[in-house]
Amino acid sequence: MDPFMQAAIDEARQGQEEGGIPIGSVIVHDGRIIGRGHNRRVQRQSATLHAEMDAFENAGRQPAAVYRDAVLYTTLSPCAMCTGAILLYGIPRVVIGENQTFMGEEALLKTRGVSVDVLQDSQCIEMMEAFIAAKPELWNEDIGV
Amino acid sequence: MDPFMQAAIDEARQGQEEGGIPIGSVIVHDGRIIGRGHNRRVQRQSATLHAEMDAFENAGRQPAAVYRDAVLYTTLSPCAMCTGAILLYGIPRVVIGENQTFMGEEALLKTRGVSVDVLQDSQCIEMMEAFIAAKPELWNEDIGV
Repeated sequence: MDPFMQAAIDEARQGQEEGGIPIGSVIVHDGRIIGRGHNRRVQRQSATLHAEMDAFENAGRQPAAVYRDAVLYTTLSPCAMCTGAILLYGIPRVVIGENQTFMGEEALLKTRGVSVDVLQDSQCIEMMEAFIAAKPELWNEDIGV
Repeated sequence: MDPFMQAAIDEARQGQEEGGIPIGSVIVHDGRIIGRGHNRRVQRQSATLHAEMDAFENAGRQPAAVYRDAVLYTTLSPCAMCTGAILLYGIPRVVIGENQTFMGEEALLKTRGVSVDVLQDSQCIEMMEAFIAAKPELWNEDIGV
């Protein structure tokens, strides 16, 4: 397992333990994690802190040059909001745990020149399948349904 | 002046008084403001709290039916991240103060069926022009340049 995807999964598991939505993300620059996070909808009653947004927030204010040389890892295909954040900051590469339980805006990322790798990792898939089966209303709320 | 755009401008002015980036936003449902906010990059060292994101955050967790019957007002054309949040939650209409100092992702919004009105309001334009002239590095950081 890629250690950065493992770190994103660890974030997702932490969110799960907190009673939240099990999605995690890390942002990597120069071989080092500069921001990590997980979905905080439940924990902070937040409508914006998806895992990727939380990772951006925790990375703090970075220079444009850092974002443009960074890789974002996320356990789940990124929604429109997180895709927009990736485009805003010009992140050139996104590594996705899985897109079987939810297909985000990968086509838009590719159209804008972002490199997208999807691992279809069984841990990520099983984690989301179990969560969606257990709390479908919470999941629908998170993706705007 | 539309009272909701005036409320967004009031938010922008508050941000300016706090030493922040003068962009404001409100989300309106059923003739009532349910969330309001302004850019918090400086105030909270935040990479994600653009005005629109702050308004979504302050609106809290709303049912999908509320978002789908809401109007988002923003003093400035929305960037990719804020556009993504509008698409995630299915906001059907966006009213924009101006797009002369910055053209956001209006084309993407329209492609996805969002109604977009641009007021080219002189207060909004002057506020952003003065800010960009005074703090170009901060502005570039906010839009990922």
